[in-house]
Amino acid sequence: MSAFRQLQPQPKGQFLMTYCAGLLVKAGLVMIADTRTNAGVDNVSTFRKLHIFETPGDRVMAIATAGNLSVTQSALSMLAEGVRDPETDELETLQTAPSMFRAAQLIGACVRKVHKDIAAAVEPGINADCSLLFGGQIKGGPMKLYLIYTEGNFIECGRDTPFLQIGEHKYGKPILVRSLSYDSDLYDALKIGLMSFDSTIRSNLAVGLPIDLAIMRRDDIAFERRHRIEPGDAYFQDISERWSKALVDALIDIPRPPYASN
Amino acid sequence: MSAFRQLQPQPKGQFLMTYCAGLLVKAGLVMIADTRTNAGVDNVSTFRKLHIFETPGDRVMAIATAGNLSVTQSALSMLAEGVRDPETDELETLQTAPSMFRAAQLIGACVRKVHKDIAAAVEPGINADCSLLFGGQIKGGPMKLYLIYTEGNFIECGRDTPFLQIGEHKYGKPILVRSLSYDSDLYDALKIGLMSFDSTIRSNLAVGLPIDLAIMRRDDIAFERRHRIEPGDAYFQDISERWSKALVDALIDIPRPPYASN
Repeated sequence: MSAFRQLQPQPKGQFLMTYCAGLLVKAGLVMIADTRTNAGVDNVSTFRKLHIFETPGDRVMAIATAGNLSVTQSALSMLAEGVRDPETDELETLQTAPSMFRAAQLIGACVRKVHKDIAAAVEPGINADCSLLFGGQIKGGPMKLYLIYTEGNFIECGRDTPFLQIGEHKYGKPILVRSLSYDSDLYDALKIGLMSFDSTIRSNLAVGLPIDLAIMRRDDIAFERRHRIEPGDAYFQDISERWSKALVDALIDIPRPPYASN
Repeated sequence: MSAFRQLQPQPKGQFLMTYCAGLLVKAGLVMIADTRTNAGVDNVSTFRKLHIFETPGDRVMAIATAGNLSVTQSALSMLAEGVRDPETDELETLQTAPSMFRAAQLIGACVRKVHKDIAAAVEPGINADCSLLFGGQIKGGPMKLYLIYTEGNFIECGRDTPFLQIGEHKYGKPILVRSLSYDSDLYDALKIGLMSFDSTIRSNLAVGLPIDLAIMRRDDIAFERRHRIEPGDAYFQDISERWSKALVDALIDIPRPPYASN
């Protein structure tokens, strides 16, 4: 029994079939998301979890989702139709939001509402929770990255720890902690992010290629690159191999431990 | 609320205040355990979680524990007093067990009994679960490493994945997956194990130095080294720094991603 604990229902707030990371450095923002979704180990599909919103020159945004797919998809659809502002009676959307903060509030409001409806309807044991990464920039405003919870509240990424993760985040965290800083080059941030994904994929069968990535350079107000890395991608494999080789080299360099028995 | 999910009671079978790893390679066995125990964030103490049993030339064993400290301590005390064999009516202990397999069964029986007693008595919400790593060798028999669950059942470490972990295992798993093989040198295994601990300590405040380690060379039937690494240990810090430097060097070597937008 105990050996199969990992097949038990996931605890609230833990989504172990997904990994998404947002890396917010001085030069810009990198967002990466896997595409694997499941409803049981024999029902695995590929779904886009990195959602793109771009009006070049005006605003550029990306949302990565983890957790209950019906909740995140419905919330994004509801947001696309617009949230009525009770004061002005106008419909607000990601396209009309005056700031990233207001946009995060709108997403949070939609997630909270959909989650409340669905959680009340599904069987006990079905986890209707979700979490989202929301990053981007609106012209004239700062670049932002938020982690939005099921209840609609959110936290903001800061300089001291310039990344946020959702889903199966533990395997990929040490490499971010060790090597990413706010001053990292934008493409070094991407490399570190991909190493973080490689570490996760190697440790958890439930996370895998393809993965989607989006890169926004600060103040460009447009995507610099958007790409899906497919299984067998040569560059992704090269990163993984160089990383393993660097590790072996480091091991050789490190002297034997001086520890005698005590 | 969501931001504080990590303060909720731990799900069954997850012990996030501890990290222990056993690395079983051709040359021998390395066991490492942290020493931090808590009963709430303001009640943190140091307890030995790596327990040593040695009769040089006859048998050498180590047990690392995670989870409810009252359960693991009571189970080991019960085992030290002996488990009565229903057929021969003799008391069996780790000192009398004819094989590592039988010794693992005895540990499992004690854990199951103590857990059953304590789980029935504690308040709901108090997690009485535990898990143990048990490794070593008895003269004339094979070297073994087992992971023993609360219910007394256990799994055995094999060559394909030559390590077992208990407690907060995810942060430290990628480095084991990437760099440890059955043919690794015994002290390379120790270095890799310490890197795995460093990755965990940097990612989770609840795991920290000091850590205990024990090394058994195959067929020596004795400990080759036993050591406690204290906070500020120069070698442990050196490993961490060399590892970070190797990562930076690898990042510089890796070319920019070729991904254009698609």
